[in-house]
Amino acid sequence: MVGSRIKDEPSRVWHKTQLRVPLFEVDLGLAVYHGNYYHLFELGREAFLRDLGYPYRRFMDQQLHLSVVEASCSYRKPLHYDELIEVHTGVNWWRTRSLALSHAIYRDEGEGGSVLCTQATLNMVCVRFTGQATVIPVEFVEILKRWVDGARATQVEASTQK
Amino acid sequence: MVGSRIKDEPSRVWHKTQLRVPLFEVDLGLAVYHGNYYHLFELGREAFLRDLGYPYRRFMDQQLHLSVVEASCSYRKPLHYDELIEVHTGVNWWRTRSLALSHAIYRDEGEGGSVLCTQATLNMVCVRFTGQATVIPVEFVEILKRWVDGARATQVEASTQK
Amino acid sequence: MVGSRIKDEPSRVWHKTQLRVPLFEVDLGLAVYHGNYYHLFELGREAFLRDLGYPYRRFMDQQLHLSVVEASCSYRKPLHYDELIEVHTGVNWWRTRSLALSHAIYRDEGEGGSVLCTQATLNMVCVRFTGQATVIPVEFVEILKRWVDGARATQVEASTQK
Amino acid sequence: MVGSRIKDEPSRVWHKTQLRVPLFEVDLGLAVYHGNYYHLFELGREAFLRDLGYPYRRFMDQQLHLSVVEASCSYRKPLHYDELIEVHTGVNWWRTRSLALSHAIYRDEGEGGSVLCTQATLNMVCVRFTGQATVIPVEFVEILKRWVDGARATQVEASTQK
Repeated sequence: MVGSRIKDEPSRVWHKTQLRVPLFEVDLGLAVYHGNYYHLFELGREAFLRDLGYPYRRFMDQQLHLSVVEASCSYRKPLHYDELIEVHTGVNWWRTRSLALSHAIYRDEGEGGSVLCTQATLNMVCVRFTGQATVIPVEFVEILKRWVDGARATQVEASTQK
Repeated sequence: MVGSRIKDEPSRVWHKTQLRVPLFEVDLGLAVYHGNYYHLFELGREAFLRDLGYPYRRFMDQQLHLSVVEASCSYRKPLHYDELIEVHTGVNWWRTRSLALSHAIYRDEGEGGSVLCTQATLNMVCVRFTGQATVIPVEFVEILKRWVDGARATQVEASTQK
Repeated sequence: MVGSRIKDEPSRVWHKTQLRVPLFEVDLGLAVYHGNYYHLFELGREAFLRDLGYPYRRFMDQQLHLSVVEASCSYRKPLHYDELIEVHTGVNWWRTRSLALSHAIYRDEGEGGSVLCTQATLNMVCVRFTGQATVIPVEFVEILKRWVDGARATQVEASTQK
Repeated sequence: MVGSRIKDEPSRVWHKTQLRVPLFEVDLGLAVYHGNYYHLFELGREAFLRDLGYPYRRFMDQQLHLSVVEASCSYRKPLHYDELIEVHTGVNWWRTRSLALSHAIYRDEGEGGSVLCTQATLNMVCVRFTGQATVIPVEFVEILKRWVDGARATQVEASTQK
């Protein structure tokens, strides 16, 4: 439990990345197939890690993966082809070997408006390529901690300035 | 709530369908990609509905879909290419417009043994092709009810005979 | 070129495997997404190799892959959700390190009738897990040769008996 | 054949779009799954149509699709997770109801260098949502023609200035 920062609560600070819903993710119901939302979360998560300065490739260079062990998703409103969306990624908590991220997808409604369409939580465990659970790299945890603190400080500052 | 049979508890009777893990579902971690387990659940669910005598196509012939609104999945053990698996499908509960199914995937370990690898719950709402929520077809509910009762009776009988 | 049996011509003998078009392969055009036909070919190819007695896993157990280097596909008629199809797999030719297979997909039209919907050719090279091209296992080539000869003999016999 | 501009030859002018290979496109061979390259081509094609000022959605708003009827792909070098790639899209020819595009994918090798990894051609037919072949919208053809001419003029100018 050492190293845990935020416990059992959704993230309050978010990384944001914008994209359009690709045609190939949409099924015959004319909305994104329920299993394919994980592609959109992944694109957000990858951008988050890259922007943190610790791209996922760095885990792999150490023969590590963040393996998803639990996931839940609430599909509040369907996403359709070509919609402009924003994938939010936040950090729920981390422990020595595991990590929980939240994702939320907002659909752009034009004129600055947007609507929450999808919410998900992914619990991940750091594993070696052999599959064995192991410790999350210390350097990554330091970066994550700094981001959470920095993002919160910015948020507090922003809300104070209002 | 009228029509609900089993509430907030995992199914105790299961439909079972066997298949092999396709190569195209496996990612660079050498296990099924977390979003692709929904393909395996779907194959199990489709077989379940077909065996019930109410294939999913019959929903579609009435311009209806069962749209997934909530899903959670526990990836206990990874599934690998070519493994022989059994996808279990059970009914958690149903209401006038919604339905919750459970899925479990067991990996065949040879000599009659198997190990539980994946567990999931999917909540679905019956929607028209227009997206509007609507009542689940009565005929389907009757069939579902009969299956749950029949499956339970068989199970009770089987456990009595032991 | 040594070892080549059939050259630059489509296979005249076919392995056949039956399946239903899964919902998750279908896109918003209500037909199978063009890139997903490769999943259907793969399911046919896997069944072919298994029935030959040399499942793909045996290549992998030797740290080998059959890597696709060229593919072409003619989408004559679209395949739709739940259609009952037959995936045909045939052998065009093989060389020391490469192999060309043909696939054809027929849609069941009921009463014994069927219609050709999709045709494809895949050229593959045998590679080590490191990516380096290498010789196709001799044992596999022997089996392949026997299948092609056997299948042809059966075909000749069948056409003589008419 | 009226309206055809370029015949049976690969495009000489290209639209270019840059992206990174997503993890979810990669299979257990550690390279992009052969059927998933069509996702990458699609991302390039969508960006091309959007930059032309005639996004694919405009076809769909007219109840039209560009349906792929023939495709061939040469997988010269495998693409791996996270590689920075450039998807090129070019126009081979068009006719009243059909259109052929070329795609090429180059992998960034750093210091301005890049290597050609994948080449493909897609023949498409304009179809109504009902599946019936129909005429490609005149306005789109005009835009396409202008782009091909403009792109060529720019190219000629560029090569003259050298």
